[in-house]
Amino acid sequence: MIRFSVTILGSSSATPTSERNPTSQLVNHRDKLFMIDCGEGTQVTLRKMKIHFQRINHIFISHLHGDHFYGLIGLISSMHLLGRDHELHVYGPPELQEVIDLQLKVSQTTLVYPLNFHATQCEKPELIFENNHMEVLSFPLNHRIATTGFLFREKPALRKVNKDKALEIKVPAWAYEKIRKGEDFVAEDGSIYQNSELTFDPPPPRSYAYCSDTAYYEPVIQTIKDADLLYHEATFMNDREANAKEKFHSTAAQAARIARLAGAKKLLIGHFSARYDELEPILNEAKDEFGESYLAEEGMTFSIPQLT
Amino acid sequence: MIRFSVTILGSSSATPTSERNPTSQLVNHRDKLFMIDCGEGTQVTLRKMKIHFQRINHIFISHLHGDHFYGLIGLISSMHLLGRDHELHVYGPPELQEVIDLQLKVSQTTLVYPLNFHATQCEKPELIFENNHMEVLSFPLNHRIATTGFLFREKPALRKVNKDKALEIKVPAWAYEKIRKGEDFVAEDGSIYQNSELTFDPPPPRSYAYCSDTAYYEPVIQTIKDADLLYHEATFMNDREANAKEKFHSTAAQAARIARLAGAKKLLIGHFSARYDELEPILNEAKDEFGESYLAEEGMTFSIPQLT
Repeated sequence: MIRFSVTILGSSSATPTSERNPTSQLVNHRDKLFMIDCGEGTQVTLRKMKIHFQRINHIFISHLHGDHFYGLIGLISSMHLLGRDHELHVYGPPELQEVIDLQLKVSQTTLVYPLNFHATQCEKPELIFENNHMEVLSFPLNHRIATTGFLFREKPALRKVNKDKALEIKVPAWAYEKIRKGEDFVAEDGSIYQNSELTFDPPPPRSYAYCSDTAYYEPVIQTIKDADLLYHEATFMNDREANAKEKFHSTAAQAARIARLAGAKKLLIGHFSARYDELEPILNEAKDEFGESYLAEEGMTFSIPQLT
Repeated sequence: MIRFSVTILGSSSATPTSERNPTSQLVNHRDKLFMIDCGEGTQVTLRKMKIHFQRINHIFISHLHGDHFYGLIGLISSMHLLGRDHELHVYGPPELQEVIDLQLKVSQTTLVYPLNFHATQCEKPELIFENNHMEVLSFPLNHRIATTGFLFREKPALRKVNKDKALEIKVPAWAYEKIRKGEDFVAEDGSIYQNSELTFDPPPPRSYAYCSDTAYYEPVIQTIKDADLLYHEATFMNDREANAKEKFHSTAAQAARIARLAGAKKLLIGHFSARYDELEPILNEAKDEFGESYLAEEGMTFSIPQLT
């Protein structure tokens, strides 16, 4: 199976605790690593988990509350001190570039590698990254300051050639690529084979939606529709719904409702308030609304299965 | 004994490792807490050590390399989020204020407590803090960017009254304070008692000198002379002396030589390069030059004894 997974590096909110790190996640797609948010201490978490951080080439920052980005400058610096030799791409609100630049300036650091900054906006969903196999969209959330979520979406895979059939009609090597892309095949004798005779459907594209800090906000549903995996913050429990609303955060039940309305297959909740020592009750509130709910706990990796 | 101690929160250099935190120390004098440097993750270390960080009212930053201050903004933010209600004083290079202000601005944070910033300079030693019992001086070091050390120096204590003698000559209550300050005493009958007859010498003032990142630099010796405890960086071992010089760092032997020339009573070495897994060999090189050498390892507390 082609790998597509999410590893939780931190899931605390606002202030780190001695048990839980501030927010950071690592998306692995075909062994390419993408980081989402980077709270203080993330580089040490990566080391403890033996993840080689020079493999990370793209970092997406949802917003500029410290628990989501105070670890970024340290990671950028360590990549520099350890002699990184390839580009790093950072995506986030425009002011983040100022913050990075100023901190490099005051330490008189000229990075030994290229750092490319890509400013995000909060007006509407936007394609901000793509490679051959995946694309990443940012989309607006509803928090106290400008905040985006991120949608990681596989591109449709090439069709799978029916090898028995291809051998039978002697498809030449050069034609395979075109057939995989969906073209019909014209044999030397002029007979035409419909693509559907020659191929099987590829696995459907998978997606991971990351809804960072946000109040309950239904407009996201259209963008994250049918996500195979949805992360949605769940800072509070039901009894603090007013508190959540006031602070532009969500409750576990609200996160679960978004998952249900969006037709997500699975929900991860995180960004738990430091007031909660026990996380099971938060999970239970989510499960009451959406059965396939899980806790985004440090060190856990969630694989997104490929359907055949 | 009146408490005067130094707790090591971190002693790595440049990049944190999974074993060692970047630089930070906590000075405790009469149960007042003073922080020196604040590398990334320091607030979590404080939590793990169960040190209530709202008790810290003064933070001294030696220079603006990330391993000495990337944890400051997170600590400032957490103090805010947890409802701090009293002043925090931060001392450091002038650009540090810009870095703090920008990060508070982009997160749209208005601190709930007063943060007073005090800019340091690298021209000459300067008194930057004092209370009734202690003063703190900054002094120039010789690093790649503007860097200061810090000297924590007790003020001379009041003299100790010889209680037997005082009772014998019937010193009235109101006169004690003056006698402690060194004044002679004139009895009701006009007879004069020299202060030296009535008092004992107080314990001599103690001092702690902190020499953050620096090349071998003899001009510090005058300032830190006779320090009871000296922390001096020792990034490298002897075989990398050229490396140390080029990077404006010190070797363990150089740190020890400074300790010996300054007449320090005890030396702590730290800021070890991440290349060293084993620290004993570094310590042995220091001990060859200065017997009273110790490793500044995470979690250790060094008390400065009061001589009588």
